Amino acid sequence: MRTLNVALGDRAYPIHIGPGVLDDAGLIRPFLRTARVAIVTNDVVGPLYLARLQRALEADGVRVDVVTLPDGESHKNWQTLNLVFDMLLATRCERSTTLIALGGGVVGDMAGFAAATYQRGMPFIQVPTTLLSQVDSSVGGKTAINHPLGKNMIGAFYQPRVVLADTATLDTLPDRELKAGLAEVIKYGLIRDPALFDWLEAHIERVLAREPEALAFAIERSCANKAEVVAADETEQGERALLNLGHTFGHAIETGMGYGNWLHGEAVAAGTMMAAELSRRLGWLTAAEVARIEALHVRAGLPVLGPPLPVATYLELMANDKKVEEGRLRLVLLRSIGKAVLHAGAAPDLIGASIEARCG
Amino acid sequence: MRTLNVALGDRAYPIHIGPGVLDDAGLIRPFLRTARVAIVTNDVVGPLYLARLQRALEADGVRVDVVTLPDGESHKNWQTLNLVFDMLLATRCERSTTLIALGGGVVGDMAGFAAATYQRGMPFIQVPTTLLSQVDSSVGGKTAINHPLGKNMIGAFYQPRVVLADTATLDTLPDRELKAGLAEVIKYGLIRDPALFDWLEAHIERVLAREPEALAFAIERSCANKAEVVAADETEQGERALLNLGHTFGHAIETGMGYGNWLHGEAVAAGTMMAAELSRRLGWLTAAEVARIEALHVRAGLPVLGPPLPVATYLELMANDKKVEEGRLRLVLLRSIGKAVLHAGAAPDLIGASIEARCG
Repeated sequence: MRTLNVALGDRAYPIHIGPGVLDDAGLIRPFLRTARVAIVTNDVVGPLYLARLQRALEADGVRVDVVTLPDGESHKNWQTLNLVFDMLLATRCERSTTLIALGGGVVGDMAGFAAATYQRGMPFIQVPTTLLSQVDSSVGGKTAINHPLGKNMIGAFYQPRVVLADTATLDTLPDRELKAGLAEVIKYGLIRDPALFDWLEAHIERVLAREPEALAFAIERSCANKAEVVAADETEQGERALLNLGHTFGHAIETGMGYGNWLHGEAVAAGTMMAAELSRRLGWLTAAEVARIEALHVRAGLPVLGPPLPVATYLELMANDKKVEEGRLRLVLLRSIGKAVLHAGAAPDLIGASIEARCG
Repeated sequence: MRTLNVALGDRAYPIHIGPGVLDDAGLIRPFLRTARVAIVTNDVVGPLYLARLQRALEADGVRVDVVTLPDGESHKNWQTLNLVFDMLLATRCERSTTLIALGGGVVGDMAGFAAATYQRGMPFIQVPTTLLSQVDSSVGGKTAINHPLGKNMIGAFYQPRVVLADTATLDTLPDRELKAGLAEVIKYGLIRDPALFDWLEAHIERVLAREPEALAFAIERSCANKAEVVAADETEQGERALLNLGHTFGHAIETGMGYGNWLHGEAVAAGTMMAAELSRRLGWLTAAEVARIEALHVRAGLPVLGPPLPVATYLELMANDKKVEEGRLRLVLLRSIGKAVLHAGAAPDLIGASIEARCG
């Protein structure tokens, strides 16, 4: 087991990474305020891992209540969130009860938002079971649900008490989701860790083959990058925005295509190629660098073109992005492989042309 | 104009109290991050005061968008809250846009929760227009919506940047709502300010007659009490819970009778009498003190008996209270007029008997 720390003062917390951490109630128990938890999971992950987590906690004298949500991004909305509140109230969970998210990014984002808002805040623990959630969404305290007009538009910054990333749960992850998770690993290389990018160029097939050592390295390195960024800028006033490379384009794809039709990581991959294309047109990336980025995404089995929506639709959807300020779209772009910047000066025509060149 | 300060470190903010502060955009402008606001009001307050606030801001070069909600506690739910999100997204409000609540407690609680969660948090300003919201809900950062199983069960602690309490707006407040607001003023006297209680005994008819000086004194003194308590305990780990005198009983009344049938202040008044009755049975208050408390409520035109719900229903609804910890109901009770305590040791039978004695 490897342990990282997210240094957030009185909200600091550890991330434990390794096979089987799910069964170790000793990693959870010190963080509970009372001997009571509520677990939020979904109908795909629950049948695989709920019984183990529940058994470990109950053997330690903890009362466990459970709510199982329907799986998928299309359910990341108020109606589904309300199933969590219904359960919490029906079982009389208190604000001292701890909420545990067992599942991928959607479960984590919704359970986290429920924890942030139930009785104005209850303790929260993340047990991510997908590559995407282990390397990204379960660390850093971003919680949210979607609105028909925009992804993650309603949410809160709310930090977990501890994160348990059980790498063995990835054994049951569908290939498509493993690949989608890799998009975020590649992202850390692109924005701030060129050595990670180099490592992925050398070893990405080992990750795709789920070699435990390769997976564990990719996860730990990703979490370490994220923990550093979040510790420096918890509520995204500055550097943290760089974690959104490809996300403004990607959210437009997710919203425009209907939630869940493109996986988040797939949309981020195509969005990253659009950002790389725009960076090249601004004279920052060379064509050779764009080709390297594209080649790594192709080897990861990720899309390098967005869907054929009209460019006007992309721009319209992007204008709702959370990084827009005083009407100006601020995009995360690349100065080189390993160095991202937030840039508000790109002309709409140039943005449109970059989208055009990278969709279809 | 009188100004108080809520001392919350980097989230400190001023409360301006006086007639006509609504028209003074100079009190708002320094707190805006960009020249853009969204105003949330309701269909009763909007027609009376929206144009003035909007004109003042627009004359100062601020873009103003507006959403008008249906009035009343029965609308304090997700469906109505979503009208705010719909407007914010349709008009492309950014996370740097400031949300302004113009109205009573329901508008303030909902707008505050919308501000806390839109794009994970946008700046927020309160312009309360009822006595209840001026003395209580607009100060302190509690925001929430109701759930069918409990009042204010979903919310956040989220502080405003500034509060403008325009005492002249109370001229249009219905008598019933003025009286309901007085319940919270009496509460401050009971829990921590015996001199305020004495003053109310001497002058409550002047407040009911809306004498400007009497109103301003009652509001300023209430806000000063609240500001002190909130500064000492922002997220209700301790002393702040004392502000909920009468509220655990009162929430049961509001939920049990259907939201909006009893006004919040009316339910708090009846709940306060139940708490006083229980305090007497515990040997803490004398019969004479209970009689004084009752007499003041009667003079304020407030109910001193709860509705005739079965005691079991009261207890059932109270068991969902946010102050329950490890199954034990923690009630705010009175040691004397001017001194409240949080008490978890009252026997259910004694609680039931106190309710029984004070409902019907």
